[in-house]
Amino acid sequence: MSNVAEFVEERARRLVEQDLADGILRVTLANPPANALSVAMMAAIGSALETARNDALVRVIILSAKGKLFCAGHDLKEITAARGDEDRGRAFFERTMNECAALMQAIVTHPKPVIAEVAGLATAAGCQLVASCDLAIASTEATFCTPGVNIGLFCSTPMVALTRNVSRKQAMEMLLTGETIDATTAREFGLVNRVVPPEYLNQVVNKYAQAIASKSPLTLRIGKEAFYRQAEMSLEDAYRYAAGVMVENMMARDAEEGIGAFVQKRKPEWKGE
Amino acid sequence: MSNVAEFVEERARRLVEQDLADGILRVTLANPPANALSVAMMAAIGSALETARNDALVRVIILSAKGKLFCAGHDLKEITAARGDEDRGRAFFERTMNECAALMQAIVTHPKPVIAEVAGLATAAGCQLVASCDLAIASTEATFCTPGVNIGLFCSTPMVALTRNVSRKQAMEMLLTGETIDATTAREFGLVNRVVPPEYLNQVVNKYAQAIASKSPLTLRIGKEAFYRQAEMSLEDAYRYAAGVMVENMMARDAEEGIGAFVQKRKPEWKGE
Amino acid sequence: MSNVAEFVEERARRLVEQDLADGILRVTLANPPANALSVAMMAAIGSALETARNDALVRVIILSAKGKLFCAGHDLKEITAARGDEDRGRAFFERTMNECAALMQAIVTHPKPVIAEVAGLATAAGCQLVASCDLAIASTEATFCTPGVNIGLFCSTPMVALTRNVSRKQAMEMLLTGETIDATTAREFGLVNRVVPPEYLNQVVNKYAQAIASKSPLTLRIGKEAFYRQAEMSLEDAYRYAAGVMVENMMARDAEEGIGAFVQKRKPEWKGE
Repeated sequence: MSNVAEFVEERARRLVEQDLADGILRVTLANPPANALSVAMMAAIGSALETARNDALVRVIILSAKGKLFCAGHDLKEITAARGDEDRGRAFFERTMNECAALMQAIVTHPKPVIAEVAGLATAAGCQLVASCDLAIASTEATFCTPGVNIGLFCSTPMVALTRNVSRKQAMEMLLTGETIDATTAREFGLVNRVVPPEYLNQVVNKYAQAIASKSPLTLRIGKEAFYRQAEMSLEDAYRYAAGVMVENMMARDAEEGIGAFVQKRKPEWKGE
Repeated sequence: MSNVAEFVEERARRLVEQDLADGILRVTLANPPANALSVAMMAAIGSALETARNDALVRVIILSAKGKLFCAGHDLKEITAARGDEDRGRAFFERTMNECAALMQAIVTHPKPVIAEVAGLATAAGCQLVASCDLAIASTEATFCTPGVNIGLFCSTPMVALTRNVSRKQAMEMLLTGETIDATTAREFGLVNRVVPPEYLNQVVNKYAQAIASKSPLTLRIGKEAFYRQAEMSLEDAYRYAAGVMVENMMARDAEEGIGAFVQKRKPEWKGE
Repeated sequence: MSNVAEFVEERARRLVEQDLADGILRVTLANPPANALSVAMMAAIGSALETARNDALVRVIILSAKGKLFCAGHDLKEITAARGDEDRGRAFFERTMNECAALMQAIVTHPKPVIAEVAGLATAAGCQLVASCDLAIASTEATFCTPGVNIGLFCSTPMVALTRNVSRKQAMEMLLTGETIDATTAREFGLVNRVVPPEYLNQVVNKYAQAIASKSPLTLRIGKEAFYRQAEMSLEDAYRYAAGVMVENMMARDAEEGIGAFVQKRKPEWKGE
């Protein structure tokens, strides 16, 4: 590989920091102050997620950010620069939107649970990132908005994730007015699970991660996949599908071990099969 | 046109009052005390909405009502009178239900945001009207119910809108018991966005309307349409669709202007294209 | 029938107690302390529901439980015993899951409203039972969880019902952590309608049941069926369907009687047709 390519790759790697301990992978957006979802940042997060998919050492993922902002959404400078292209930026916008949609779905379809740790502002695609995670814990100082409407660009992709967390009128208010909600409102709306004082954010998120890391990875993978799949089915189809999932889960060693341990009042030892 | 026809049309026009100022169209149900959704009233509201579709001067619509009741639902006298028809009213009921469903969907598919301003009781199809709007602001004195079950006529069409705002058990409670909820409960349920003292209702609603009227009408149209369309899709389809919407939105002059104004820290000037 | 078969059937009958008075059928899980959903218990509940379908004396059903636990979910002893089968339990698990899914859907498709009266812990399929009912009233001492993940068996079928009551992040928290929520949180999440002191639970549930029993059974049947069916449709399809339901409901005698009584300010007399 050329030195230039190495340099570019090295820089992309540095956009996120990764830290793995005790089954918990912490992926930190490390390009403050905005932690913008540039094409490079999306690639860096995507790559971290991709590597973690089949890494047996990773049982749960925390998505956090350096600095006061969680994530300011797409990189408007990058987008404005692309306006100068011959196609007025169309190809670049298409790439950006497709890669963003792929990244958000990579969280949803990831076999490991993903927890957002939100200390500060999460805006537009940054808010979408929070909405796309399985769980989200926010500091009392965290805020959320989908303000695209203020710059003539409705938050149409963020709302895909937002509306699958938040009720219609509440989502519509965020999208039409572009106004910012505080963490308590976000919890009330269903966008985050819990709101804690900033000094305890890390501790509480780790507690959640540890609790989840102690479960069978196989069971988590089966359950998370089934969760999102059944959500899009009719009740009848969902039951037919979930009953099948349940039987397969029951036949796995981890269920036999887990039920056995429960009956014998001992701690289970997961084999992941 | 005959004098009689003129008189009928004049009367229908008077069922709603319209007032347009600064991009905000206020459509007021003006047949107190019940403001019932008679066939004539539905036609009057529908006509006001239809005219506003392509009127560039209208950027946002407020739906309000004269008197203490917001809207008492269908006109039971009209319905009872139709029982005397040869078909025991079937044709009239079909017309009423179809026109009501069309009216509610005309709000959802309207290119301009619609805000319900609810000062008093909204019942049955009146409650549905509130649920069908993009946003709803209520006075502390507003109340809501779907009491059809009390008169042997389950609120089956109101529940189409209600269940797209309110969670299942909460909607079921309103529908099975027919009981009335207060404005605070309605906010908790997701039926209204905000509850304010009666003397400030108008002011708060206008503030919302002004905020929305200051956005690009093109962006609002694109975003509102995408909001309701993506809500009915699977996650994968929704992302594919919304990413395409986002690219088209990005290519519009209003997005270029909006992003440019943001980067240059000036107020955007929307062209609506 | 042989004495043995009679004995088995008698025992199954005793797993639930039934009490019918004033149109209200109370079905009580009567196998404390766990009230586990063994195959026999599911059959007993299912049989009670089936008999009630066409029993004109039954207008509303209360599902309650004896003892401190509402229902502890599937019978782990029964499941563990089946591991000894030649197929390691597969056939038995399939039967259990299919019968469980059928039972839950029998509640949803039942022509009479079903109210859960929850005095204590509802776990896994027990939590699903609460989620599957049309309404749920809980004591302040009631608690809820989907802890399958703790024993290697993700609550995949319980989540079908849970996610149709509770928002995504909240459901995911219950499913991934397996932790228990209290009644107030369950109400906030949308899993139960109301939380009352234990000493008033029975009284409040009966009040709800009486209110619903006073409505037209025909109207309740029409409305409940339409509720769940339209919930799975697009807005346009839901309106087309619900408008048709509304017209048929309007043509029924009970609607004519109900509207007539309302206009004449007298109490309606339902004919159920």
